Amino acid sequence: MSDQLVGGIEPPYYTVVFTSVRTEDDPAYAPTAERMHQLVQDVPGFLGYESARTPGGIGITVGYFRDEEAIAAWRANADHQDVMRRGRADWYERYSVHVGKVERSYGFERG
Amino acid sequence: MSDQLVGGIEPPYYTVVFTSVRTEDDPAYAPTAERMHQLVQDVPGFLGYESARTPGGIGITVGYFRDEEAIAAWRANADHQDVMRRGRADWYERYSVHVGKVERSYGFERG
Repeated sequence: MSDQLVGGIEPPYYTVVFTSVRTEDDPAYAPTAERMHQLVQDVPGFLGYESARTPGGIGITVGYFRDEEAIAAWRANADHQDVMRRGRADWYERYSVHVGKVERSYGFERG
Repeated sequence: MSDQLVGGIEPPYYTVVFTSVRTEDDPAYAPTAERMHQLVQDVPGFLGYESARTPGGIGITVGYFRDEEAIAAWRANADHQDVMRRGRADWYERYSVHVGKVERSYGFERG
């Protein structure tokens, strides 16, 4: 992860924007998040993700998927479903999810 | 800003996902970003934004707009265009922009 950006994907594709406010810090959160980041790699049509969190502020994770089928497959994953329940029970004060179809993207890289 | 999330917008609307890696810290960056966050409020069809940055890592800003016209109006803003040039010249190692049309969104709030 670190400072890699997802770019150069040919549209159309989908962005799943997940924004969240956490509850108190829970030591189980980080390893679970890392496990999910590994698990999603196996979903056919998963193209990448980025994640950022301002300390004490909000977090934003963007998942990139080729099509709606790929998003549905990830949502249906049983391990992911368990973790989503755990998230609502323990880890998040609130979150929002916005699923967008990308027809246009561009980027910049310092020469 | 702080820990407010954008939610509850009736689809369709657009997300503009801006992911970036900064160059060295520049004291001019934060006040300019804040000025842009104020300026964009005046764009008809602007619905909100969220921003997060992992210290030493990537930043993600999501802008929410009602339609393509609102996005185009913001891109065409002369002050914003100056700042985008300044961003490429000084502030960003690289960035990516993904414009998505949202047909589906949902959220969670702790009871």
